[in-house]
Amino acid sequence: MKATAFAPVNVAAIKYWGKADADLRLPANSSLSVNLTNLGTTTTVEWDKNLTADIADNRMVEHLDRVREIAKFNLKARVETKNNFPASVGLSSSASGMAALTLAATAAANLKLKTKDLSRLARLASGSACRSIPDGWAEWATGNDQASYAKSIFPADFWDLRVLVVILSQEKKKVSSTAGQKMAFTSPFYKARVAAIPAKITKIKQAIAKKNFSLLGQIMEEDCLNMHAVMLTQRPPLVYWLPETVRVMQAVRQWRRQGLESYFTVNTGQNVFVFCRPRDEVRLTARLRRLEGVKEVRRDQIGSGAKLL
Amino acid sequence: MKATAFAPVNVAAIKYWGKADADLRLPANSSLSVNLTNLGTTTTVEWDKNLTADIADNRMVEHLDRVREIAKFNLKARVETKNNFPASVGLSSSASGMAALTLAATAAANLKLKTKDLSRLARLASGSACRSIPDGWAEWATGNDQASYAKSIFPADFWDLRVLVVILSQEKKKVSSTAGQKMAFTSPFYKARVAAIPAKITKIKQAIAKKNFSLLGQIMEEDCLNMHAVMLTQRPPLVYWLPETVRVMQAVRQWRRQGLESYFTVNTGQNVFVFCRPRDEVRLTARLRRLEGVKEVRRDQIGSGAKLL
Repeated sequence: MKATAFAPVNVAAIKYWGKADADLRLPANSSLSVNLTNLGTTTTVEWDKNLTADIADNRMVEHLDRVREIAKFNLKARVETKNNFPASVGLSSSASGMAALTLAATAAANLKLKTKDLSRLARLASGSACRSIPDGWAEWATGNDQASYAKSIFPADFWDLRVLVVILSQEKKKVSSTAGQKMAFTSPFYKARVAAIPAKITKIKQAIAKKNFSLLGQIMEEDCLNMHAVMLTQRPPLVYWLPETVRVMQAVRQWRRQGLESYFTVNTGQNVFVFCRPRDEVRLTARLRRLEGVKEVRRDQIGSGAKLL
Repeated sequence: MKATAFAPVNVAAIKYWGKADADLRLPANSSLSVNLTNLGTTTTVEWDKNLTADIADNRMVEHLDRVREIAKFNLKARVETKNNFPASVGLSSSASGMAALTLAATAAANLKLKTKDLSRLARLASGSACRSIPDGWAEWATGNDQASYAKSIFPADFWDLRVLVVILSQEKKKVSSTAGQKMAFTSPFYKARVAAIPAKITKIKQAIAKKNFSLLGQIMEEDCLNMHAVMLTQRPPLVYWLPETVRVMQAVRQWRRQGLESYFTVNTGQNVFVFCRPRDEVRLTARLRRLEGVKEVRRDQIGSGAKLL
């Protein structure tokens, strides 16, 4: 009873910030993301009748309990997990990690869950993990426990875009996303943000459907700044940006004015994802690598969802 | 018919962003600022019957027209003006500049205007210039053309605070405040910002009255982030911060966690004003000067309003 799964990091173009229900990890607003190809987590789960306790960290044990409840058994598991990217630098490792754990643990238990149910289950472990389950572009809807999961709205091969992952710092966040999210409602701008999301999701889906890169990028950048504006105005204020984050943002905007078109987005951390078209990938990578304070640039592209290896 | 005036730079603790009337420079929200002692503009105006045209730049000529209308004469003027700080680095030189011009031009014309009328007149040249006229802490109220001026709410010597002016860059702003302000209303957060201002002004006035430095600083920092959050979410987004702006903000917050208490505010530009108590001034200045990217730190304090020299 052993299985290994890979789940990708997902990057939100319309972001999730604030929970409607913290225990069930139900989001206050819908979100829309895209999976990467290279960056992700590989996890092996083995249910072993000889074990008397799980060999896994606490957050994983909590999730294994959920799988045991569905499988209706009481076996303990050995979990091995590995990110293929630097840990704790704000690259949403909990999303790919919990998605990989969900797929590996249920497959090893011989549970053949539908994508929709896998996504819902991953959500219970880490909200945005639900978006690393389905293929390509995923929409995660608000709703109750049954209705809130992510589904694929465009496949990975629908549109060949490139994502440059700009790693700036190994510095750990002083405030975790989970802690920060609890205070989202204290921003005077929070309600206006949540109210505007449905129209933004409709608009960005149209941009993707039409492969309108400029429109996609514009909406994505705006939503990133919108979420960070809410964070900046929470109590206490959350300033996730580093000096280098602003340097990359300003550089991307300046290069764009000069005709080299790309768009940035920043998760709840300091690192930057830069979206571009294939023809500009090499040039942009070189430019980003030359920027002061940039530690590493990983080249990636739109990818499929979690899969068994 | 010649007079020389000095007007100080003013720093807004509750900031002004967005106009109710662009021609009359009526603000969408009230604001509250404090004058500095050292930083400012010295301007000499001489009305000379031998001149056939003003010797002054276009924006000043427009303002001289207003003074000529009040003075009911048609003399031309020679204007000499000098900032005692680096120009065009986002230190609100138009505020001190237009306030000094207003006082010098009216005095040279032998018009003895009340502070209130000087402030209103300065407002017509550059909105926030009205706050560089009265003494110390000034409140600039919204209202119609007659009612919208700044008045002193606490004198300069009421509270001995220090202001460290952190100069980061000579880079000119890509988008002027005047141009940026016109788009303020496109932020989804603009209405919520404007609606929350009256309560913030009441609260910060109480903090000053009680000389509660922590409360003053907290409200000031929050309002700064609030205004920049509106700018970040305008269309097109306005990112006035430089990497170094964020470095100073993060440093101030970190030193505060370590017990060295100061608060930052950033105008519509990249430079940072750091407020502190006299006992911490020397230590903070030294620390700020050691920060990467800091070009210069000017030590200043709460000052009086525009005055004739």
